[in-house]
Amino acid sequence: MNALGKQLLMELKDCDKEILNDIDSLKSALLTAANEAGATVLGESFHRFNPQGISGVVIIAESHLFIHTWPEYGYAAADIFTCGNSVQPEKAAEILISKLGARNHSITEIQRGTLDVEESESG
Amino acid sequence: MNALGKQLLMELKDCDKEILNDIDSLKSALLTAANEAGATVLGESFHRFNPQGISGVVIIAESHLFIHTWPEYGYAAADIFTCGNSVQPEKAAEILISKLGARNHSITEIQRGTLDVEESESG
Repeated sequence: MNALGKQLLMELKDCDKEILNDIDSLKSALLTAANEAGATVLGESFHRFNPQGISGVVIIAESHLFIHTWPEYGYAAADIFTCGNSVQPEKAAEILISKLGARNHSITEIQRGTLDVEESESG
Repeated sequence: MNALGKQLLMELKDCDKEILNDIDSLKSALLTAANEAGATVLGESFHRFNPQGISGVVIIAESHLFIHTWPEYGYAAADIFTCGNSVQPEKAAEILISKLGARNHSITEIQRGTLDVEESESG
């Protein structure tokens, strides 16, 4: 399909609650996921909330990864947004599932920017 | 619905191409959208690519807004992810559509974290 971007919406349930509230573990998980998927990391920003919960984003040259966690429910929402063919978002998704210890998950794939144009990176 | 987060996936088409390639305009658009929606801005990160295109994210206490632009197609993908009831994501969406001069757009609303739990912020 002639889409500019691909987005994996990840619902991560029954995760390890300690990891969901540990900023270093989450930062490591997202950066590892980005690197193993073949992405080029440009920057990151993580915030911890009181009494619990973390939001984090990793900006990559090919778009971004983010995560928002609710440790009290063992739940995290994560998105992996990529463009081009050089990155393997499914590999990043596998790593996040594993690193967060998610015993249940679902992934919805969304195509972004399905324009009626010639697109140089499609293939 | 008893969801922890709400996500608006915005497809912004036929936008002003100059704005899509101007980092200051996009930063101003996202920050204005966040503030007018009632969100608390915690940080932001924007990157400009060669020869064109910008990626930007604004982290808010209630989650995040991001944008990725393809000026060559007049296209931008934007997401507004919020939790709780204090923010009006639809207002942020209206502002982005207006500030980017999008003559065509579509918005898909996704519920994130629809868990089988009592949730204190639901209303």
